[in-house]
Amino acid sequence: MKILIINGPNINLLGTREPEIYGTLTLEEINEKLRSYANDKGIELETFQSNIEGEIVDKIQQAKNNCDGIVINPAAYTHTSVAIRDAISAVGLPCVEIHISNIHRREEFRRHSFIAPVCIGQIAGFGLDSYRLGIQAVINYIESN
Amino acid sequence: MKILIINGPNINLLGTREPEIYGTLTLEEINEKLRSYANDKGIELETFQSNIEGEIVDKIQQAKNNCDGIVINPAAYTHTSVAIRDAISAVGLPCVEIHISNIHRREEFRRHSFIAPVCIGQIAGFGLDSYRLGIQAVINYIESN
Amino acid sequence: MKILIINGPNINLLGTREPEIYGTLTLEEINEKLRSYANDKGIELETFQSNIEGEIVDKIQQAKNNCDGIVINPAAYTHTSVAIRDAISAVGLPCVEIHISNIHRREEFRRHSFIAPVCIGQIAGFGLDSYRLGIQAVINYIESN
Amino acid sequence: MKILIINGPNINLLGTREPEIYGTLTLEEINEKLRSYANDKGIELETFQSNIEGEIVDKIQQAKNNCDGIVINPAAYTHTSVAIRDAISAVGLPCVEIHISNIHRREEFRRHSFIAPVCIGQIAGFGLDSYRLGIQAVINYIESN
Amino acid sequence: MKILIINGPNINLLGTREPEIYGTLTLEEINEKLRSYANDKGIELETFQSNIEGEIVDKIQQAKNNCDGIVINPAAYTHTSVAIRDAISAVGLPCVEIHISNIHRREEFRRHSFIAPVCIGQIAGFGLDSYRLGIQAVINYIESN
Amino acid sequence: MKILIINGPNINLLGTREPEIYGTLTLEEINEKLRSYANDKGIELETFQSNIEGEIVDKIQQAKNNCDGIVINPAAYTHTSVAIRDAISAVGLPCVEIHISNIHRREEFRRHSFIAPVCIGQIAGFGLDSYRLGIQAVINYIESN
Amino acid sequence: MKILIINGPNINLLGTREPEIYGTLTLEEINEKLRSYANDKGIELETFQSNIEGEIVDKIQQAKNNCDGIVINPAAYTHTSVAIRDAISAVGLPCVEIHISNIHRREEFRRHSFIAPVCIGQIAGFGLDSYRLGIQAVINYIESN
Amino acid sequence: MKILIINGPNINLLGTREPEIYGTLTLEEINEKLRSYANDKGIELETFQSNIEGEIVDKIQQAKNNCDGIVINPAAYTHTSVAIRDAISAVGLPCVEIHISNIHRREEFRRHSFIAPVCIGQIAGFGLDSYRLGIQAVINYIESN
Amino acid sequence: MKILIINGPNINLLGTREPEIYGTLTLEEINEKLRSYANDKGIELETFQSNIEGEIVDKIQQAKNNCDGIVINPAAYTHTSVAIRDAISAVGLPCVEIHISNIHRREEFRRHSFIAPVCIGQIAGFGLDSYRLGIQAVINYIESN
Amino acid sequence: MKILIINGPNINLLGTREPEIYGTLTLEEINEKLRSYANDKGIELETFQSNIEGEIVDKIQQAKNNCDGIVINPAAYTHTSVAIRDAISAVGLPCVEIHISNIHRREEFRRHSFIAPVCIGQIAGFGLDSYRLGIQAVINYIESN
Amino acid sequence: MKILIINGPNINLLGTREPEIYGTLTLEEINEKLRSYANDKGIELETFQSNIEGEIVDKIQQAKNNCDGIVINPAAYTHTSVAIRDAISAVGLPCVEIHISNIHRREEFRRHSFIAPVCIGQIAGFGLDSYRLGIQAVINYIESN
Amino acid sequence: MKILIINGPNINLLGTREPEIYGTLTLEEINEKLRSYANDKGIELETFQSNIEGEIVDKIQQAKNNCDGIVINPAAYTHTSVAIRDAISAVGLPCVEIHISNIHRREEFRRHSFIAPVCIGQIAGFGLDSYRLGIQAVINYIESN
Repeated sequence: MKILIINGPNINLLGTREPEIYGTLTLEEINEKLRSYANDKGIELETFQSNIEGEIVDKIQQAKNNCDGIVINPAAYTHTSVAIRDAISAVGLPCVEIHISNIHRREEFRRHSFIAPVCIGQIAGFGLDSYRLGIQAVINYIESN
Repeated sequence: MKILIINGPNINLLGTREPEIYGTLTLEEINEKLRSYANDKGIELETFQSNIEGEIVDKIQQAKNNCDGIVINPAAYTHTSVAIRDAISAVGLPCVEIHISNIHRREEFRRHSFIAPVCIGQIAGFGLDSYRLGIQAVINYIESN
Repeated sequence: MKILIINGPNINLLGTREPEIYGTLTLEEINEKLRSYANDKGIELETFQSNIEGEIVDKIQQAKNNCDGIVINPAAYTHTSVAIRDAISAVGLPCVEIHISNIHRREEFRRHSFIAPVCIGQIAGFGLDSYRLGIQAVINYIESN
Repeated sequence: MKILIINGPNINLLGTREPEIYGTLTLEEINEKLRSYANDKGIELETFQSNIEGEIVDKIQQAKNNCDGIVINPAAYTHTSVAIRDAISAVGLPCVEIHISNIHRREEFRRHSFIAPVCIGQIAGFGLDSYRLGIQAVINYIESN
Repeated sequence: MKILIINGPNINLLGTREPEIYGTLTLEEINEKLRSYANDKGIELETFQSNIEGEIVDKIQQAKNNCDGIVINPAAYTHTSVAIRDAISAVGLPCVEIHISNIHRREEFRRHSFIAPVCIGQIAGFGLDSYRLGIQAVINYIESN
Repeated sequence: MKILIINGPNINLLGTREPEIYGTLTLEEINEKLRSYANDKGIELETFQSNIEGEIVDKIQQAKNNCDGIVINPAAYTHTSVAIRDAISAVGLPCVEIHISNIHRREEFRRHSFIAPVCIGQIAGFGLDSYRLGIQAVINYIESN
Repeated sequence: MKILIINGPNINLLGTREPEIYGTLTLEEINEKLRSYANDKGIELETFQSNIEGEIVDKIQQAKNNCDGIVINPAAYTHTSVAIRDAISAVGLPCVEIHISNIHRREEFRRHSFIAPVCIGQIAGFGLDSYRLGIQAVINYIESN
Repeated sequence: MKILIINGPNINLLGTREPEIYGTLTLEEINEKLRSYANDKGIELETFQSNIEGEIVDKIQQAKNNCDGIVINPAAYTHTSVAIRDAISAVGLPCVEIHISNIHRREEFRRHSFIAPVCIGQIAGFGLDSYRLGIQAVINYIESN
Repeated sequence: MKILIINGPNINLLGTREPEIYGTLTLEEINEKLRSYANDKGIELETFQSNIEGEIVDKIQQAKNNCDGIVINPAAYTHTSVAIRDAISAVGLPCVEIHISNIHRREEFRRHSFIAPVCIGQIAGFGLDSYRLGIQAVINYIESN
Repeated sequence: MKILIINGPNINLLGTREPEIYGTLTLEEINEKLRSYANDKGIELETFQSNIEGEIVDKIQQAKNNCDGIVINPAAYTHTSVAIRDAISAVGLPCVEIHISNIHRREEFRRHSFIAPVCIGQIAGFGLDSYRLGIQAVINYIESN
Repeated sequence: MKILIINGPNINLLGTREPEIYGTLTLEEINEKLRSYANDKGIELETFQSNIEGEIVDKIQQAKNNCDGIVINPAAYTHTSVAIRDAISAVGLPCVEIHISNIHRREEFRRHSFIAPVCIGQIAGFGLDSYRLGIQAVINYIESN
Repeated sequence: MKILIINGPNINLLGTREPEIYGTLTLEEINEKLRSYANDKGIELETFQSNIEGEIVDKIQQAKNNCDGIVINPAAYTHTSVAIRDAISAVGLPCVEIHISNIHRREEFRRHSFIAPVCIGQIAGFGLDSYRLGIQAVINYIESN
């Protein structure tokens, strides 16, 4: 089983950006931890980050052939991208939308997600733990379907 | 560590209601499975269900003294109860809002949650697995704070 | 055939409250008249009133096993209760929403019903006659399905 | 006592239009059944159908002199006609708005009625039975006023 | 003269909840102070708190027979309860809505009150003093009507 | 100079409808008074009333060839007819929208006019005097253009 | 009979401001013409212009004692002044709101009037003729009441 | 194959109305051109224009028996007629909505179509060419279904 | 201790305006009563009324140096004045907004207050008693801070 | 004459994605068919697809120098891209927006197009035929301008 | 060249109001600095502040004869004054709207400006520097026009 | 000191696009002028333009290490890009949003900026001068912080 972890715009700044809030781990260190977590679960992980909406669309399309599921943190594109929504909907892979912060507590415009309606579900607010819960949710979904 | 599982209105019908969708497990059987899951994690679980908004407020208030965290499926009260929101906010226990179904895919009025802004986060769409992910999230939160 | 008549909050004040508008019949006298009306139709009637949203949810759930249909005057909960909506939807009994007054003529917030979309239909504006029309509608529905 | 039954646009297609949903009775056959029902009640019935808003306004105006009440299924004009509303309001006859389908379950724009606020009340969702309940409601209203 | 003081959901937590904001007085100590204040005014006080919407409706209905006025802090139900509104409207007792905090400064959803339009008036923002001003307002109203 | 007076739906009921409000003059008697008023001004008047939106569109189109201006009381069609708006806009005759009642004081939906933006102006609230002021306004407009 | 003509902010610029649109008459010349028009009607006219909302309120209050009616062009204050509305409502004099331009054709915010609901009616779009039509309307109203 | 061309209100003015915009062809000349176009395609054409909403509903109903498809330019009724929508939906013929002008560039209220959701599709903005593209689209649809 | 009583537009008409509603006391007589009330409390009172928004802003600014608190009835400016809001916010004196009538029961536009969010709180609906409750509230606030 | 066909995000999945709905033709096969169609018309075709919004902006800018018109299926960017709108507006080439599906029948957010107001017109709902109708519309437009 | 600097309500409090935010410079000291800045640029400056909306309207009207441009900080009137908008529009002088704070970051109601659409442009967020940038912008505009 | 000038989509067309409005200067010539302006101020300038949202995000992230401030003209992305907002917010550099045109005068959707709330301020409407004012504002901000 192989799961693709997609991170949207500005997630590449983790570790250097407001470390008192987001911690001092870089995205690479986080990916390392997730790979280790995945390893314990006996699954493979591919990680991808882009600030470009269309590249994320490309990646989702390619995942159709070599991944079993997707965990996506669409970041800013959560609220503006119909293109990513359509891509997920088109490839038909089980997908979980996750957010590091509790988007329900932030600006009004961050409460609306174009992506969530075409995912299995949404997990928001648990920091880096959101990724782990998302991976677990995809695994459970695949195993029970 | 002791976690309180709160289920809102109509969740007591699980197992007998639309079993082709929700499965044939009754709420008691589910609670049994969650207790077993909690047992493996080495924590204690208390379960509570009520159709009455004010009784859920009462239960949350009481949890302040004998629980370490809350996993709540507010069901219909998600969208209408400021009282439950205020109770969670007042007791200050770490709380996770979960939903069996992907509320982002359903009627418009089910997308708004009064509860989520005062929780750590929200998990929606993973069936009974939402409870397990919620319990895991509360445990992780308590252990890292 | 047995039909459950549910009355929501403040309906228990009928007869003593603004009698020049609502008449001098108490809820018990009205129920008596409806029982007599039902008797003529050869059906059984159970009547229930509560000011507590969750108790109405409880009653609807219990009706699943011993009633064939429901006539409900949700009163104030028409406009605020997703929980009663979900209960009616879950038990699957034929249900008719009725209102004593013509809610389309009153405050804007009284025009929206959470309940009507999960009922067979809605009858509003005919005073106590709304109950009789509602009972007739449930009987006709059951006999033709 | 004489009651006018008004049917708005496209109701003349009943019987030939989607018979699996609306049944195979034509509007004339339905009118026949309603006349028989009215006969049992000892009242007279006049039936009218038009696809033209202004002709319905004309008919309502004329009813002032030779009818005691109106049962109207305004169909599509429910949601768009202020003219029919003003006509009903002007003639002052007791009027009941009925709908074959449960309009609360359909498209959002079908939930708003310009007509209902100037009627005694509204009955929606009971198929052809909506007409019979409407006739009964008008009779009861006239007899008790 | 006897005035009923009604407190809505979560008000029972006063004293133990965020004492740096709400002070260290418990609801019972506050009620004691209000009773003393009432005593000075030569009137009787009955106090009531419930987290259950329907129980507050019940209490208001019962007040009709043994109280002369009501001071209500509907707390979270201010914004969601049509049932409490209808109860106050039905019993016809002079009623004052009070709030400890200045609701005009808080979340948008807290600015709308279903209750205030059926009260004499609304007093908001004066901490525990809101209760005393409310009692004074009810006394003045009764004495001048 | 010839001016066309158009009256929309239900205006034909004037005199017999709520005479305590609208007076006891029938539409024909009013038209007689307006013709007399026009006579004094030395202009010709043609009067037209229809309950049918499309007939009013027809009339406006025909006016292009034999009238110099239009005074229209669109009544209910004020708020719903884009077709009458387009007809006035297409024929290019000077047109004044008038209303017997002050529409700014009535139901919210009566405040919006599809017609006024394509007229010279709007006169509302002066009873039958609104027609006379409208005729005067059209005359003045034609004479000064 | 004495009528007060009130002109709101920026109306004092007439004649010098965009003369190709508004003509070359100054406000004083216009007032002169209106006084001449009033003279022909055998009534007295008082004219007043201010750019200050509160001064217009003062003037309306004073009119109570020495005027029989008001013609007001509230200009920009049409859309923002509740104070002028309350003043007109308080003094109880017959008042007509007029506008030089057709406000229904301009920016969306110019379509809403706080003033019109407390006037007899509104006249908009007829240039300086709006004043004359307004004076005529006030005279007619006073003479027929 | 026979296609019905329906034109809504004010389309009969083409040629005489604003010829610098809409050209100097009358509706009859246009219909002649469309008949010639249809002839080349080997299909029959019936043309119909009415300013009366209900007559368009009548025509659509009649088309059920003698036409294979409909091209409709609903003009002003696009934005206000639920009755025409219901008629198209009821007869079940393939229908294409066309507009001469690009409605997406005009007033806000012209962007919403009640008709388009029950058509195969919508073609807007190509002048008289919109009719030809609409005819082609209906032919292609019928031939491929 | 010195408190400034500010009355907004049209409050100067009290006593002469609709005396059956507002009583026959003039503003000066009311101020006299409030001065007497203040005297009993051992505090000084300054009273001010203006129909001009900017003069109220000026007065609030000046109060900074010689008053300890403000009781303001902004009347019509409650709903339109950001300037008064900013003035109160800038001077930092404790301020209470009061209303004679229950604004929650009146027109929709009277429910929104620009002023209340920068006051300690709001008191509405108690007639002239609203002033006395407001004075009491300011005194209590100052003494406990 | 040379026309540029632009396809937005996810259109590259045609043929492999939900073939029961969209058919089994790949985008390349479709382009082949369109080239053949263009060949018959005696015009040249350039085809372009990208998932990246900015690349589509680049392509539109470049078309200014070597194309005579554009047929664009903006897909998901229809509803979110002001940048593509501005690009079309800036280059000034005749452009037709097309959609494979009838967007008026789908989710609410798909009904709004940022692109259509700067195009000649919009064609939606005719499957692959939408492209052919779009090409025909551009040719007709160029030939008649 | 002479530029008029207009400051709206409460700007006269600068220096004494929240000095930790706005600095300790009084409005007069600021004006002094701006005069010095203008001197360096070789232009004349007139400064004006008023809390009264109508006085600002008066000032703008007078500027027509003796100033070449306006820099206005409308403060609270930005969001409520149509009268100031109309005055700027009427005099036709080049005008720049400036704000000390970044209004896009503050309360929702502060984001809408009635004034900006009739100015050359808007500068917001740069503290006292906003005035200097505004003066520079007016000079550049005048010099290049 | 080094400032980064970012230009969003379609700004690269300047000079060739509508030169009668935007002038005949190309973006490169403008950048040349800005560099000259910067040179006079003694600061360094880096210029960047992209039509791709994600590339602008990349550029902002990179600026963190080698620039002291940013002047951004986000063009179309002003209204749609949460990603650029988050990038600016994350890097923490002082940033000024500028617009060539007065966006408050254009289409409604151009008035909302996702970017402005995370900038120091916004400058709009001064043509190419907006860039110079923006550079000046960043310099002043850096020097005074």
